[in-house]
Amino acid sequence: MDLAEELASKQRSISVAEFFEKNKHLLGFDSPTRGVITTIKEAVDNSLDACEEAEVLPDIYVAIKRVEKDVYRIIVEDNGPGIVPKQVPFVFGKLLYGSRFHQIKQSRGQQGIGISAAVLYAQLTTGVPAVVISRTGHNSPAHRFELMIKTEDNEPQILKEEEIEWDRMHGTRVEIEFKSTLAAKKRLVDYLRYTAVVNPHARVRADIDGEKFNFERASDETIVPPKAIAPHPHGIEFGTLKRMAEGSSLKLKEFLIDGFSRVGEKSADEIIGLSKLKADRKSDKLSSDDLKALLEAMQNVQIPPPPASVCLSPIGEDKIVQGLDKEFELDFVRSRTRKSQVFSGHPFIVEAAIGYGGKLDSEGSAQILRFANRVPLLYQQGACAITNAVSDVNWKSYGLSQQGLPNGPVMILVHVASTNVPFTSESKDAVAAIPEIEKEIVLVLQELGRELKTFLNRRDKSRQAEERARAVCSILPDIAEKVSEIVKKPVPDITPLEGQIMRKVVVKKRTGNGKVEIFVNNYTKNPVEFTIYNMSADSGDDAMPKPDFVDKIGDEYNKLWKVSMEPESYWEVSYKGSAQGSVSIRGVDENKLVVVDLF
Amino acid sequence: MDLAEELASKQRSISVAEFFEKNKHLLGFDSPTRGVITTIKEAVDNSLDACEEAEVLPDIYVAIKRVEKDVYRIIVEDNGPGIVPKQVPFVFGKLLYGSRFHQIKQSRGQQGIGISAAVLYAQLTTGVPAVVISRTGHNSPAHRFELMIKTEDNEPQILKEEEIEWDRMHGTRVEIEFKSTLAAKKRLVDYLRYTAVVNPHARVRADIDGEKFNFERASDETIVPPKAIAPHPHGIEFGTLKRMAEGSSLKLKEFLIDGFSRVGEKSADEIIGLSKLKADRKSDKLSSDDLKALLEAMQNVQIPPPPASVCLSPIGEDKIVQGLDKEFELDFVRSRTRKSQVFSGHPFIVEAAIGYGGKLDSEGSAQILRFANRVPLLYQQGACAITNAVSDVNWKSYGLSQQGLPNGPVMILVHVASTNVPFTSESKDAVAAIPEIEKEIVLVLQELGRELKTFLNRRDKSRQAEERARAVCSILPDIAEKVSEIVKKPVPDITPLEGQIMRKVVVKKRTGNGKVEIFVNNYTKNPVEFTIYNMSADSGDDAMPKPDFVDKIGDEYNKLWKVSMEPESYWEVSYKGSAQGSVSIRGVDENKLVVVDLF
Repeated sequence: MDLAEELASKQRSISVAEFFEKNKHLLGFDSPTRGVITTIKEAVDNSLDACEEAEVLPDIYVAIKRVEKDVYRIIVEDNGPGIVPKQVPFVFGKLLYGSRFHQIKQSRGQQGIGISAAVLYAQLTTGVPAVVISRTGHNSPAHRFELMIKTEDNEPQILKEEEIEWDRMHGTRVEIEFKSTLAAKKRLVDYLRYTAVVNPHARVRADIDGEKFNFERASDETIVPPKAIAPHPHGIEFGTLKRMAEGSSLKLKEFLIDGFSRVGEKSADEIIGLSKLKADRKSDKLSSDDLKALLEAMQNVQIPPPPASVCLSPIGEDKIVQGLDKEFELDFVRSRTRKSQVFSGHPFIVEAAIGYGGKLDSEGSAQILRFANRVPLLYQQGACAITNAVSDVNWKSYGLSQQGLPNGPVMILVHVASTNVPFTSESKDAVAAIPEIEKEIVLVLQELGRELKTFLNRRDKSRQAEERARAVCSILPDIAEKVSEIVKKPVPDITPLEGQIMRKVVVKKRTGNGKVEIFVNNYTKNPVEFTIYNMSADSGDDAMPKPDFVDKIGDEYNKLWKVSMEPESYWEVSYKGSAQGSVSIRGVDENKLVVVDLF
Repeated sequence: MDLAEELASKQRSISVAEFFEKNKHLLGFDSPTRGVITTIKEAVDNSLDACEEAEVLPDIYVAIKRVEKDVYRIIVEDNGPGIVPKQVPFVFGKLLYGSRFHQIKQSRGQQGIGISAAVLYAQLTTGVPAVVISRTGHNSPAHRFELMIKTEDNEPQILKEEEIEWDRMHGTRVEIEFKSTLAAKKRLVDYLRYTAVVNPHARVRADIDGEKFNFERASDETIVPPKAIAPHPHGIEFGTLKRMAEGSSLKLKEFLIDGFSRVGEKSADEIIGLSKLKADRKSDKLSSDDLKALLEAMQNVQIPPPPASVCLSPIGEDKIVQGLDKEFELDFVRSRTRKSQVFSGHPFIVEAAIGYGGKLDSEGSAQILRFANRVPLLYQQGACAITNAVSDVNWKSYGLSQQGLPNGPVMILVHVASTNVPFTSESKDAVAAIPEIEKEIVLVLQELGRELKTFLNRRDKSRQAEERARAVCSILPDIAEKVSEIVKKPVPDITPLEGQIMRKVVVKKRTGNGKVEIFVNNYTKNPVEFTIYNMSADSGDDAMPKPDFVDKIGDEYNKLWKVSMEPESYWEVSYKGSAQGSVSIRGVDENKLVVVDLF
């Protein structure tokens, strides 16, 4: 058949750059709008990873500048360790080039695809080369590159290289220009905000087409960078074992101890015994059948799970709570970090938090914040194992209504950290449905759900108590009147009593006997902080305690006291004088405040 | 900083085979169970594509044989044009190697990844090399290869190559062995069945661990293979235009006419006029700015859409209906093939069908059959644009209840054919949410929905008519009795009347005056076909019409007439005789049949 020859003439090798150029949607470049977010995400991921490895507190600058009608220039700059000049063209101008692909540890980027894909997208849509500036320390000059990718063979093309002056001592700056829109600006700001929440050690400043955003660091501790570990004997594939054995000249026992996580003398002996191989066989001399026996034996020996504490870097319960509280001013927030688990030999940790009330929208479904290896996931919520797991929890038993997702002013954060996060696609939008991971998420949410329920019950109880108190207060004036009639005294002021029943902050001012007194009772169950403003003709020179600030306005003195009170406590101030003046309070919710001028 | 140097030492290039070995879930190898389906799907796709190019009616054999406990050998063999020996190692042993990547036409496979990924998966899980046999015609010997992939550089490794005897004149056979299960057998059989439905020109035989399946071809016409077209000026990217221009030594005008679909003299002049470039400029001498002006101009000139009829191969309305009806014996089925449309410069056609009743399950959601370029999509239904579009249609207005998907005994088939189907991932499970495609699907379903509604209304009307008829029939005996009392005659037989009212097939036999007569009235609105069995001592030698078959059993004659009747028509037979005997009818639903022995 001549046809076979004809078909053969059309056969050819496709470079990985050609492949991803044609299938750019697989990398998160489906549309110009999304392209901006993907580019910034990839660049910021790289910056955070690099700073972490260098144990530097990240200081990242992101900018989007409009160049013309629908063309934007995207800039991301960091204070990381920089990239040596000879590597720059490969890191930015070649897909599948990187340092983390073969390392077993938690990192944001892994494949060495992301940022080069952005360079590829730029040259496809505008033909403008990427500009990269990098400097590795004060002894080295900064280098500036103009780069493109030769699509046909996936190799970098250097259009220009020069040494330049740069004020950063070390760091990297990348500028990429492509057709785009700012239609997804809100999502972009969300991305930066959530990145700050789960990277409290990072400062992120952004200038989005002129509008400035600043996410300050919440913590000055650098993260201890996760360390790479050896593969774990459980869950290793035959092909990987074969490659490891072929590449080692050690004897079998040393090969096992040296090449694998958690394998010591004892486990190695046990594995070798089960496999019926000799301990002094050279690993590179093992046949396929030998290796099959070895693999089988490895699966059947008890070996502790991989050392997750070394290779993973969870955010931590306190840091999550801090971050969320800063963002949403929640009425309730709890977080949990679970112990590490394993799927197919890869260690992983699930962390989660639930927040309630505060600035959260009380209408509609809960807000789900998804993270993987400290990176916010922005797209494909419906296709993500995290979302599935949230829907799998029976929220009704924790006091929330539910239609798939729970409803109400609820926020659920889930972070999956792993040496190998299983994403559903190379655009890293959604975690794949791995049963072990889904189970952990459900468990942590159930734990948190129980705490949420306790909070909601208590809140409901205090609401009931408030309603009862309100009922009592509404008949208090009548009771007071009746009693004063009977005992034939004037009707007393019942406001402080009301404050006490209703659990409020009650402020009373009394003027008489040549002095002015201000009494405060905090009847609430919470500590309160507020400022008392007292404006009168009296100077308050002898006041005890002294005012924190006095301002003379015309003939009058405005005296300020900053007061901080424990729950159910008492505070007072007095000074010589007779002026009536006024008292006002700032810092306490009006509903929680009763101010009484006695006379 | 020394750290930059240290990091640099870890930087390296990752081969695409290493990448996909680590990310095998991206290619549909998430689990051993799924691996089987993906492998067969990729091999069958290749077979169908090859047969189509060779204009051969495909004859495909699929087998899964258990080798040991959890290891299966998967075999796919076709009668395609075969592959020339020097190409075999690359086609099966190198990812991103193929003939269809750069061609703009509808095809099942495109990237040159699928089948090599299966070889990679096999060597990873069992280390067993793939076996490939191929022969390109009766003048050439068959070649047999044992192949693996060198993961580190994505190049084929030939373990063995030999010429062998093979009974196929031309074709290809691949055998791949890996750890697996048959847990997804039902899904696999569904895959084969649906493949047969949308490829009615293909014969598919399967042997799944001993169980045989045979899907015969429903049509003996070969498919006219789609032809590759040039890119369309609308929707082309800057980078692609630049590459085309750099690679051409033609003058601008010829470059446009030659290089693009649908650009003739007039459009070329118009584009050049708008771009303000000179028509005789050499394409490879155009600057970036020139090309930007050219691209802008190309978008602003009216150009007919790409020639979809050449490069696309829809299944066609009749073929879809045939395929579905054979499978489900539906009460109602309609299909529509829409006109071609364009997204981002890629032509596409949407076809759809709706079926109702028959063997479909009347409980639960509609069954959705999704296809892309004649390949059934089996996974990730929830993430697919087809499913979204089905949910977007308001089915209530077409007489179906709906919760997201419509409910009831409904089947919805959607086929998207395109030169570039936008999948959500490289495992090709779901069509991405492209607005142009979703809109077409909604439109075609609305068209079909209206027809379904007409059917359901008519069915409801005929149900009402039947109920009324039933009411009439229930009082007929009383009326007959009263009337016979009044006219003083014996009560007549009202059965035929009942048959007429109820729209049934009424068969009457009368014996008397030395002859036997059988009368049949088809009162239904449909043509009917059935067989009359008449068993009696009469031979029926003189019967008019003659029996189609006579069988003497003991002293009796079993006489058979095959009868085919138009709606509301009459048929009779008579012969000499006097024996009572029996009459029975086969082929008419009992509910639709009345048999009366008059005397």
